[in-house]
Amino acid sequence: MTKLRVGIAGLGTVGVGLVKLFADPNSRLNEKLELVAVSARDRAKRRGADVSTYRWFDDPAELAAQSDIDVFVELIGGSAGAAKASVETALSRGAHVVTANKALLALHGAALAETAERTGAKLLFEAAVGGGVPMVKALKESAAGSRASAVAGILNGTCNYILTEMESSGRSFEAVLSEAQQLGYAEADPSTDVGGFDAAHKLTILSAIAFGTRPDYEHVRIEGIERVSLTDIRLAGKLGYRIKLIAKASLADGAVEMHVRPALLAYDHPLANVGGSLNALVVDAEPSGQLTFIGRGAGEGPTAASVASDLIDLAEGRAGFAFGRPLSQLATAPRGTPSERGRYYLRLLVADRPGVVAAISDRLAHEDISIESFLQMPVHDGPSVPIVLTTQTCARAKMENAVAAIEALDVITEAPFVMPVEHAGPRWSRS
Amino acid sequence: MTKLRVGIAGLGTVGVGLVKLFADPNSRLNEKLELVAVSARDRAKRRGADVSTYRWFDDPAELAAQSDIDVFVELIGGSAGAAKASVETALSRGAHVVTANKALLALHGAALAETAERTGAKLLFEAAVGGGVPMVKALKESAAGSRASAVAGILNGTCNYILTEMESSGRSFEAVLSEAQQLGYAEADPSTDVGGFDAAHKLTILSAIAFGTRPDYEHVRIEGIERVSLTDIRLAGKLGYRIKLIAKASLADGAVEMHVRPALLAYDHPLANVGGSLNALVVDAEPSGQLTFIGRGAGEGPTAASVASDLIDLAEGRAGFAFGRPLSQLATAPRGTPSERGRYYLRLLVADRPGVVAAISDRLAHEDISIESFLQMPVHDGPSVPIVLTTQTCARAKMENAVAAIEALDVITEAPFVMPVEHAGPRWSRS
Repeated sequence: MTKLRVGIAGLGTVGVGLVKLFADPNSRLNEKLELVAVSARDRAKRRGADVSTYRWFDDPAELAAQSDIDVFVELIGGSAGAAKASVETALSRGAHVVTANKALLALHGAALAETAERTGAKLLFEAAVGGGVPMVKALKESAAGSRASAVAGILNGTCNYILTEMESSGRSFEAVLSEAQQLGYAEADPSTDVGGFDAAHKLTILSAIAFGTRPDYEHVRIEGIERVSLTDIRLAGKLGYRIKLIAKASLADGAVEMHVRPALLAYDHPLANVGGSLNALVVDAEPSGQLTFIGRGAGEGPTAASVASDLIDLAEGRAGFAFGRPLSQLATAPRGTPSERGRYYLRLLVADRPGVVAAISDRLAHEDISIESFLQMPVHDGPSVPIVLTTQTCARAKMENAVAAIEALDVITEAPFVMPVEHAGPRWSRS
Repeated sequence: MTKLRVGIAGLGTVGVGLVKLFADPNSRLNEKLELVAVSARDRAKRRGADVSTYRWFDDPAELAAQSDIDVFVELIGGSAGAAKASVETALSRGAHVVTANKALLALHGAALAETAERTGAKLLFEAAVGGGVPMVKALKESAAGSRASAVAGILNGTCNYILTEMESSGRSFEAVLSEAQQLGYAEADPSTDVGGFDAAHKLTILSAIAFGTRPDYEHVRIEGIERVSLTDIRLAGKLGYRIKLIAKASLADGAVEMHVRPALLAYDHPLANVGGSLNALVVDAEPSGQLTFIGRGAGEGPTAASVASDLIDLAEGRAGFAFGRPLSQLATAPRGTPSERGRYYLRLLVADRPGVVAAISDRLAHEDISIESFLQMPVHDGPSVPIVLTTQTCARAKMENAVAAIEALDVITEAPFVMPVEHAGPRWSRS
């Protein structure tokens, strides 16, 4: 049997992991595929894997253009530049592409899938979402036998690591982020991760597959974890909640609502105990029921393994459409509205004066909002006191009114911070 | 495009669920498949789905033999009789088979896969394990890009429901089982479920796929939940553990060790919080890392959805080998030995006399076994007192010696009950 000839562009952590898998004589990769060429910026760099036996290209687009390369593996990253150009080059000439590039897919996935369908090339990207967790395949399969109504996940390992470390070590966001950067868990410019944009890229991809819609990054409402403080984590913990960055997409009446934002989860929520750099996805689908997937969301091994599983799917003829269906069948869904009712967490910093609690309670009562729990902690420094509360279920609009009214009180010394409370409820129930 | 013509044998819960999916105009099933015939014992029975438009067969083997049936769906159950005969009939003439029959696969999977390979038929069985959770596919894919070293799961929803209910309601095994039977969650003869045999069938299948070995049911060590008492659940809870029926297979030095048995899990174990009738699987594989899958393990919807996903895989040409590899590549693995060292839970019923605790401690100390925790509860009725303890890590052989020595004490009024303690440890760690 002729083996598929593979070229890898990008020899960072994942690229080197994949080279190692090809070098492993026990790997099933070598049964049906053959690594023949690589490309990276610096040929002289030491990499922990020998790449001298493969053809070298300084320019990934030149590698992608080689007529004897059957599969182009793009591990460069970034939604534009060399990554986009080389993927387009490969697909245009009918070569298959396997990529881990979530930003590229979130922004240009539909156009790339169109090129692939035109030339008969396959475009696979299991490694773009959830690292070693087969979220993309699970949704393609689930979409086949079932219909999904919602997907919710922890999709950014850096944010989850930071929030978990803040809780367990009692250190500040800045301190944990700085340590994560030193350990290589977070980028020098962390904004893509902590700002929620990376999770939004991944959610865009999952939502498209889950609901059979075109990838639509512009419609994701995005809020990062920068405002989550140690006070929030501690006080939410005292109230029975854990704070996680949740990426969630829901389908209702043909409209898709997508958001990424920090939220409070009750401890029995299936995502509440997903700690450290783990990733997880919860899929609500019928008739299969709720499914949860948990695993390592990043790193050399898990991500390289996902690239390898795509390569084997290609070699064994199992690769289907990029987003599970032909592009012509993907709907352009209108942007859904966030749910009208919910429960909320509110953190305030107030001047320590008599009547403050009464004033806050009054503004909430005025909007018919009942308080579920209320916590004021002793002051350790400065003249201001943190107060946090959670509400009963209330209308979102009324909560916005109440927060505006509270912010207008002269005792408020910092802009209020609001997070939604996600409850396990019947759909999350494990029995 | 010609549609694959499907015949369903067995119109119980899952069969009816599948008929409903075919009747749903929005289901993707109808794009590429067509239900043409059904078979069941009683044609006149009311079923909640109209089957009058399909050809009827009283004999499933006759349905399986029809040359115009491309896919035979076996939902009869049982490892012999009509199920086995009709599946053999279909495969022998080259018709594909989709089945949810774990007993048949555990006992005759290799022979059936051999027939399928000979005639070019496909044999698929996602629904046989884990209900709506795509465990089979996950392992086939994981096996492709990674190598598994262990799989451990909660594979029997009836047992998990009983244990969860005992803990939450404080009722006895017998009371909860009886209620489960009335609700239809447990069979009139519950021994296949509560005896651990159903979980062992499923483990046999998963182990074969995970490790690339021939299905080998005879090598599973099986212990059911019949001896787990409310006392065990309560006292284990006080010590920080939850009792679950765990099905686990491990690969070491080419040998495969498989067992099904009740075990104590620390609350932070990834399987400890899988409650009610949910199923779950934890896969240890490299380089993908540990993966956890959780979902509904039984019922009309989830199981029918898994059958449907197999049917769509068939229609779209994605179906591979039954156990992920050609039969010739499946190894016949020797039976592995249980791990030599571990931690244990011991429940004793003793006469309430001075010196009892000293005598028990002495027998453990004599074998160099350190006690981790010890709990004696006040007596409510009768002259005997329950005592439970957990040990530090010790040699299995020494634990067996100690238990034999304790059992020989004249204060012991009931045979001691031992369960292993599974710790989360580094491999289970979620960070």
